[in-house]
Amino acid sequence: MTQKLRFAIIGAGRIGYVHAGSVFDTPNTEIVYIVDTFKEAAEKVAAAFGGKVSSDPEAVIASGEIDAVIIGSPTPTHIPLINAAIKAGVHVLCEKPIDLDIKNVDSNRAAINAAKTNVTIGFNRRQDPEFKEVKKRVSAGEIGNVEQVVITSRDPGPAPQGYIAVSGGIFRDMTIHDFDMARNFIPEIVEVTAFGANAFCDYIKEEGDFDSVSVLLKGSRNEIVTIINSRHSSYGYDQRIEVFGDKGMLQIQNFTPTTVKLFNKESTAAGEPYLDFFLERYAASYRNELKLFIQGIQEGKNLGSTYDDGRAALILADAALESARTGKAVRVSF
Amino acid sequence: MTQKLRFAIIGAGRIGYVHAGSVFDTPNTEIVYIVDTFKEAAEKVAAAFGGKVSSDPEAVIASGEIDAVIIGSPTPTHIPLINAAIKAGVHVLCEKPIDLDIKNVDSNRAAINAAKTNVTIGFNRRQDPEFKEVKKRVSAGEIGNVEQVVITSRDPGPAPQGYIAVSGGIFRDMTIHDFDMARNFIPEIVEVTAFGANAFCDYIKEEGDFDSVSVLLKGSRNEIVTIINSRHSSYGYDQRIEVFGDKGMLQIQNFTPTTVKLFNKESTAAGEPYLDFFLERYAASYRNELKLFIQGIQEGKNLGSTYDDGRAALILADAALESARTGKAVRVSF
Amino acid sequence: MTQKLRFAIIGAGRIGYVHAGSVFDTPNTEIVYIVDTFKEAAEKVAAAFGGKVSSDPEAVIASGEIDAVIIGSPTPTHIPLINAAIKAGVHVLCEKPIDLDIKNVDSNRAAINAAKTNVTIGFNRRQDPEFKEVKKRVSAGEIGNVEQVVITSRDPGPAPQGYIAVSGGIFRDMTIHDFDMARNFIPEIVEVTAFGANAFCDYIKEEGDFDSVSVLLKGSRNEIVTIINSRHSSYGYDQRIEVFGDKGMLQIQNFTPTTVKLFNKESTAAGEPYLDFFLERYAASYRNELKLFIQGIQEGKNLGSTYDDGRAALILADAALESARTGKAVRVSF
Amino acid sequence: MTQKLRFAIIGAGRIGYVHAGSVFDTPNTEIVYIVDTFKEAAEKVAAAFGGKVSSDPEAVIASGEIDAVIIGSPTPTHIPLINAAIKAGVHVLCEKPIDLDIKNVDSNRAAINAAKTNVTIGFNRRQDPEFKEVKKRVSAGEIGNVEQVVITSRDPGPAPQGYIAVSGGIFRDMTIHDFDMARNFIPEIVEVTAFGANAFCDYIKEEGDFDSVSVLLKGSRNEIVTIINSRHSSYGYDQRIEVFGDKGMLQIQNFTPTTVKLFNKESTAAGEPYLDFFLERYAASYRNELKLFIQGIQEGKNLGSTYDDGRAALILADAALESARTGKAVRVSF
Repeated sequence: MTQKLRFAIIGAGRIGYVHAGSVFDTPNTEIVYIVDTFKEAAEKVAAAFGGKVSSDPEAVIASGEIDAVIIGSPTPTHIPLINAAIKAGVHVLCEKPIDLDIKNVDSNRAAINAAKTNVTIGFNRRQDPEFKEVKKRVSAGEIGNVEQVVITSRDPGPAPQGYIAVSGGIFRDMTIHDFDMARNFIPEIVEVTAFGANAFCDYIKEEGDFDSVSVLLKGSRNEIVTIINSRHSSYGYDQRIEVFGDKGMLQIQNFTPTTVKLFNKESTAAGEPYLDFFLERYAASYRNELKLFIQGIQEGKNLGSTYDDGRAALILADAALESARTGKAVRVSF
Repeated sequence: MTQKLRFAIIGAGRIGYVHAGSVFDTPNTEIVYIVDTFKEAAEKVAAAFGGKVSSDPEAVIASGEIDAVIIGSPTPTHIPLINAAIKAGVHVLCEKPIDLDIKNVDSNRAAINAAKTNVTIGFNRRQDPEFKEVKKRVSAGEIGNVEQVVITSRDPGPAPQGYIAVSGGIFRDMTIHDFDMARNFIPEIVEVTAFGANAFCDYIKEEGDFDSVSVLLKGSRNEIVTIINSRHSSYGYDQRIEVFGDKGMLQIQNFTPTTVKLFNKESTAAGEPYLDFFLERYAASYRNELKLFIQGIQEGKNLGSTYDDGRAALILADAALESARTGKAVRVSF
Repeated sequence: MTQKLRFAIIGAGRIGYVHAGSVFDTPNTEIVYIVDTFKEAAEKVAAAFGGKVSSDPEAVIASGEIDAVIIGSPTPTHIPLINAAIKAGVHVLCEKPIDLDIKNVDSNRAAINAAKTNVTIGFNRRQDPEFKEVKKRVSAGEIGNVEQVVITSRDPGPAPQGYIAVSGGIFRDMTIHDFDMARNFIPEIVEVTAFGANAFCDYIKEEGDFDSVSVLLKGSRNEIVTIINSRHSSYGYDQRIEVFGDKGMLQIQNFTPTTVKLFNKESTAAGEPYLDFFLERYAASYRNELKLFIQGIQEGKNLGSTYDDGRAALILADAALESARTGKAVRVSF
Repeated sequence: MTQKLRFAIIGAGRIGYVHAGSVFDTPNTEIVYIVDTFKEAAEKVAAAFGGKVSSDPEAVIASGEIDAVIIGSPTPTHIPLINAAIKAGVHVLCEKPIDLDIKNVDSNRAAINAAKTNVTIGFNRRQDPEFKEVKKRVSAGEIGNVEQVVITSRDPGPAPQGYIAVSGGIFRDMTIHDFDMARNFIPEIVEVTAFGANAFCDYIKEEGDFDSVSVLLKGSRNEIVTIINSRHSSYGYDQRIEVFGDKGMLQIQNFTPTTVKLFNKESTAAGEPYLDFFLERYAASYRNELKLFIQGIQEGKNLGSTYDDGRAALILADAALESARTGKAVRVSF
């Protein structure tokens, strides 16, 4: 690629800032536009990493000035913007979830899967060095046949009520990452059961959502995946996985800012609280995701998560929600 | 107590051997009888720790020669022997489960709960120093309000087919300990859902039983308990708990024979495989259980797990089995 | 051995209490005498574990009523009592150090080494399951050729001034265990250098002793042993070893009362402070030491640490003290 | 600073490559020259990060085209190039050691300390986030009064014989980092004693150098520092520190590529071998060092390690060597 790859970043919130920074750090790329309906946000990102400011994503996509777009705007805009990009011959890296309504996802599926440009869905954790190492070693047979996967995911604290109100609920907003990770290890999931609870947060309850959930997934080859979520965690962002096979188990550990441990009369080997949240914890993962996206453009094929990966995670989220509400295990197919 | 407390040990298998050893090590106690239909087993235990050998538990209980009986014989004998002991004025420490059929448990409930002697059910793990420490610190408010409990329990390897056949199934035989531990932290459980799988063991499947399960329990105050079980574990006996509250989390770790760690070109900080099984892992717990049983006799009240604790765990096991079979969450009451 | 092995315990302090308890728990042994010039101490031990009370160790040794004696009385009594026991045909387990003066140790050496009864010196740590496991694995070649040994040993807090005054100094009283452990891994030590400091304790300084020391030992095959000591440790009894070879390293970890770890907004994975002191930390080690002592009596040879082991450790302690005072490395031979 | 800071990198070996990369990643800087007598090495670095290639460092320094120079060429060139840079009004970041001969260091001291431009010596570890965190917490009083410091530093494998031959020996080449770290915590060191050994490497012995050493340092306030070094380590780069105070202890841990741990029938919680060497382990440290160097230029004062820091570390290295050779503790003053 002799020419620079020209990017627009749509959505100048926290995640847009991270993506813009990653593009800025990548050789042979250029940020042409930062787009946000909230102009000041766009200007802040542009000041840091360059690019013109716009509040009109459709116009930017159609401008002919960009080769690729990173979509981090609100969920309802995802499918329209993907479609616009496809039409304009622009490659897409779109944040999860694709949409909160599986019907919308399904009705756009054929067209998007037939697109000539790459459409990657941002399940960045698959690109995290920790999870990748586990995946690599599992694939190499180090623990034999996978029988159980246990995923623990707890956020440091709940998102504000306004966010919760439009989030689609914990399963579609938060657990969706864990559903994708479950599929990373157990591609064929056939059944879902879930419990949801309102353990601590009144405004999440007001929104008809849960603050704590556990989900069980059954795989087609007798695997069981267990997911444990909470919308808060006093000790920081808790992101663990344990993959259990007949020959061994692999685990990842949480991230502390440094490895320093304190020993005194109260306690021993006490580490620091965990990194506060996903932008810090998954910094490498976001960079790898972008790298893979660019490499995919160069190779003419999507190397990251697909639209169908995004759809599958949403199907699992819907099934978990149904199960948590009805008390019945829900069979799923993709 | 100036007189020695006179014991009979009924059932001279592995667990009977452990109980006999604990009694032997306890001052002011005496083993009067070791009882087993398989005479050689009884003789072996008697040789190690003393006592006369008998194959007739009812006669021993009625002999007037004993003050207390430890029942570790097959499950179907539990209720008849408890009743015989009550009738004879003999205190009872009975291994779990009380019975595999909740109807039998219920029909004997009133009489056994009205007994003048102590009837303790052997949920020894509640007396394990590790679990007790967690319980103590949770009760002291160290982690605030308990929201989630995660229990992992994996046996080193499956019991033989003959045992599986009469075990009542994984939920009533193995998970039952975890149900009791769940109740240790979340006394009021209201709903159960479970997935069971046959991941690795043909003969367990032949017996219509699962080798791997995950269970979710819902508490009356919005707690969620997650239990993860497997009938095998390549790295040894895996016994963990994690209690998560709004102010913190407490975890216990597995037991290695020593703390030695190896660092070399293959790996770093590698510990030894975990202790092989429950008699080693829960050695302190069995001793504490006996100590509490004896103290209860001295104080004239049961200080250990009650018949109703045994009943509650069986109700949860039955609910989990029903859920795993029907795909429906099952509401429970006690 | 059809008859019970008859013991006297000389010295009814903390360590005497532990030894008496170990004998009490050992089948086919009998405590015949508890001896202490402070009668109440002897009575307390006798009340717990049996035995007659005496304040005359020489008479007890000569009484013909005992087969073995455990000497835990003050250091100056050690050699006279060992000699008395040898003369009386009584086996000896004597606490370290043999004596504070190497001349006394040397002048009694020939006679004691020629004794017909077993004379074991109480370097109990060699019998600790942790150190034994390291030794076993080193001997099996798991880490190749041993090049470096690092021993960290910090007491929870300093002994009282009265004890320090007669202790012989930190090298002969505390580091002596580490010298013996160094010899456990590097039998041929040829040179010693040491630094001593008065970092925190005025009364230790008043007694002309150090509260903190580091010692380097050179082995005949180019090994270097590093010992780090402090008379206090805010986080509990700190007892570590790290054996480094060309193919790997083995480490032992400290002991917490339980494995419980706390995670909260201040810290993560915080363990409990370490066990407070040697009687708790080395409980298994004392039991193993006694077991080996008894086995040695049965086999007619000393299986534990020898008089010459005790002498070698004292030679190293003297060399370290000389080095710390003179600033010169001291060559040693045994 | 509106203009870009113009750099020359002198020495295009591994460390030069790292420095060039750090400059390349830093906004408002420009690499003007890459200098190496071995032209291909310079070209390789220039190809990656830009800059003209030269083999004449003096000419580059005098060219008027650069504001700052990073000196990573062989040790004998350090002082001449520092002097040239000072004369040319160019800021200097010079790798350790300043020189192998303390006489040269001393004779240039006054002039270099009087320089108008900044002269920073590259003791990068002081800028490592791990060590900095320990330092920050020690300074905040978290562990009270510092009494003992234990530094373990083992390289993955020995440098080649050619390097060893001109390295000045292990104390001046490798331990020198640990001497600087010791001074980071205990600024006033008054005495040194050391043992050196040839445990495994014939060609190091041939060069009259040691492959394994332990060093003790005494501080003016009764602190003892213990340093343990080896030129090899089967399990990877071993870089630990333990700072022990009267109120607590702080430790840092080694770095694994990921946090993944394996559990199987051979071992439990086995981590990956440690990062292979300093460029990986201290990546953040090198970046921080450069950042501080640039900030110092902007603020008009040296914010990093000084020439006198470099001199002090060399004095300690010389003292350790003398002690290891003579068997005498060596008093030092600075």
